[in-house]
Amino acid sequence: VTDWVERVLAGDTRAAARLCRLVDDQAPGYREQLRALHRVASPAYVVGVTGTPGAGKSTLVDRLVSAYRKEGRRVGVVAIDPTSPFTGGAILGDRIRMQRHFEDPDVFIRSLATRGALGGLSRSASDVVHVLEAWGASVVLLETVGVGQDELDVTRVADSTVVVLAPGQGDDVQSIKAGILECADVFVVNKADRPGADATARDLENMLALGALSLAAVQAAGGHSAGHSAARLTVAAGGGSGWTPPIVKTVATTDSGIDELAEKLAGHRAWTLTEEGHALRAERTRSLLEGWLREELGRMVADQLGPELAAAADDVLSRAVDPHGAVEALLARFRAR
Amino acid sequence: VTDWVERVLAGDTRAAARLCRLVDDQAPGYREQLRALHRVASPAYVVGVTGTPGAGKSTLVDRLVSAYRKEGRRVGVVAIDPTSPFTGGAILGDRIRMQRHFEDPDVFIRSLATRGALGGLSRSASDVVHVLEAWGASVVLLETVGVGQDELDVTRVADSTVVVLAPGQGDDVQSIKAGILECADVFVVNKADRPGADATARDLENMLALGALSLAAVQAAGGHSAGHSAARLTVAAGGGSGWTPPIVKTVATTDSGIDELAEKLAGHRAWTLTEEGHALRAERTRSLLEGWLREELGRMVADQLGPELAAAADDVLSRAVDPHGAVEALLARFRAR
Repeated sequence: VTDWVERVLAGDTRAAARLCRLVDDQAPGYREQLRALHRVASPAYVVGVTGTPGAGKSTLVDRLVSAYRKEGRRVGVVAIDPTSPFTGGAILGDRIRMQRHFEDPDVFIRSLATRGALGGLSRSASDVVHVLEAWGASVVLLETVGVGQDELDVTRVADSTVVVLAPGQGDDVQSIKAGILECADVFVVNKADRPGADATARDLENMLALGALSLAAVQAAGGHSAGHSAARLTVAAGGGSGWTPPIVKTVATTDSGIDELAEKLAGHRAWTLTEEGHALRAERTRSLLEGWLREELGRMVADQLGPELAAAADDVLSRAVDPHGAVEALLARFRAR
Repeated sequence: VTDWVERVLAGDTRAAARLCRLVDDQAPGYREQLRALHRVASPAYVVGVTGTPGAGKSTLVDRLVSAYRKEGRRVGVVAIDPTSPFTGGAILGDRIRMQRHFEDPDVFIRSLATRGALGGLSRSASDVVHVLEAWGASVVLLETVGVGQDELDVTRVADSTVVVLAPGQGDDVQSIKAGILECADVFVVNKADRPGADATARDLENMLALGALSLAAVQAAGGHSAGHSAARLTVAAGGGSGWTPPIVKTVATTDSGIDELAEKLAGHRAWTLTEEGHALRAERTRSLLEGWLREELGRMVADQLGPELAAAADDVLSRAVDPHGAVEALLARFRAR
């Protein structure tokens, strides 16, 4: 066990791949191994890349990998694809996605599919990031293939999140799911050589100018993730003292704008090290931990109260007990264990 | 307090409206009042109505109300609209939606918006159903305006769920979110006088014939609601012995097909009273209770561990502790309280 950890820390790619599999399978002892890695590994800079389907995220990630490789950095890539039927590494998809980098020993590429097991996608992503930074990655790119809530949660693992849009993907920016836009630390309008790119960028600028309005809407909406979104939007709306997401136009297929994107990301990275930036980062982490704790409790409920839940359902249907009374009784039982 | 309960049980509409507001506000003592109602009220037949936006759900509900009123039944209508800025009764929307029934003293119409307060939409819907059945409704229609997961959860409160589609709303039935289709006890193809209605109905038939395949996909996907979906699809795929959702073509604006829909619903209602039907109903209720229990625990986590969560986030960011260790420590603290 410790042997694998040491090999990963020595930069052994096969050992890192094996550890990723153990983490995927949540094999016995995987938490202890992660803990051992976490204690000694240098933190990587984690960049989330999300956005609308068809915006060219994969190509953009491919070019960002090249940019970071030019700086001599070891790079990890984690493609979050809950729809993938492959478990723990969709080899074929990876090869197609990253042909140029697949043979580079300093690039580690891994797909992550949901397994329906303990914890959610964000937890698996966090685990794999820790393996990759132990392996020596100084930057890890987390690409979400879809845009579901689980995938958006993954962006909270990141230090910086890039939201990629392309012109002509819908009537306007307003039609894009609000949750996606709220994730952005940097916006990319990719395929910027196509008609409508300027309009898309302008829509984003207007939306950012209306940040205060969005903040109010988010606060009014309440709910689990509102604190997180509100904190981000406060920053976005805060003017000079906070962070306003820059908008970068790129044509990933011709490498245009990629250096500027890397520069804006470095700027955001520097900001996250300020007091204000750190506070936002801490709030994201707090929100992640709260979500993981809730998941853990939900799993314990399912494990420990199976028969009691079924009996309570029968009692509610037969009107022997009302739903609130049933939940209170189940809660008391759960807490007594 | 008991006075209001007695007035509701006597069929007083103003008292029912007041109790709905107390429930919305989760005012002190509302659970006790619900409990008192629940003990003595006769259960109503609860019909969920969901489906794609623009399929004509509101008009269909309006016509179903008329059909049930012709049978002399008191009818409750709850419009679940989490996007509504109104709290506890979007009067204007209600009036527009249900003009014909708004003055009928035997029809009670109420909008339900999320309040971001304790419990989710399904719990609020369940509470309001209990008030309405105490008021004397023998049938309650639960219309979801949107199609988010919260709104789909609401259908688990229902005895029967109608999923409404319309022709020409997308390329094909396959493009509709799977979760919606899996809710169906009865399918309605509304606007059946438009081109493409037969194709939509045929698509649904094919999908039902492939029920066994969907079941496997759902089981593979795992996750919180999989047990529920799998149970439904088992029934759908079970052939002669189970329940295969019938497909009814309607033109709600001309009342065409509404009587057939009411008939199919009565057939499903009868099936839910068989042993097999009851088992499915019990599984839905079990799943609802589990969800409410999880929500309650999540709320307790947020209430009781606020400062500890923030401190844990700082520790994880400074690498004083790894995320798994932080969650384990928080869990131990929570359980010790």
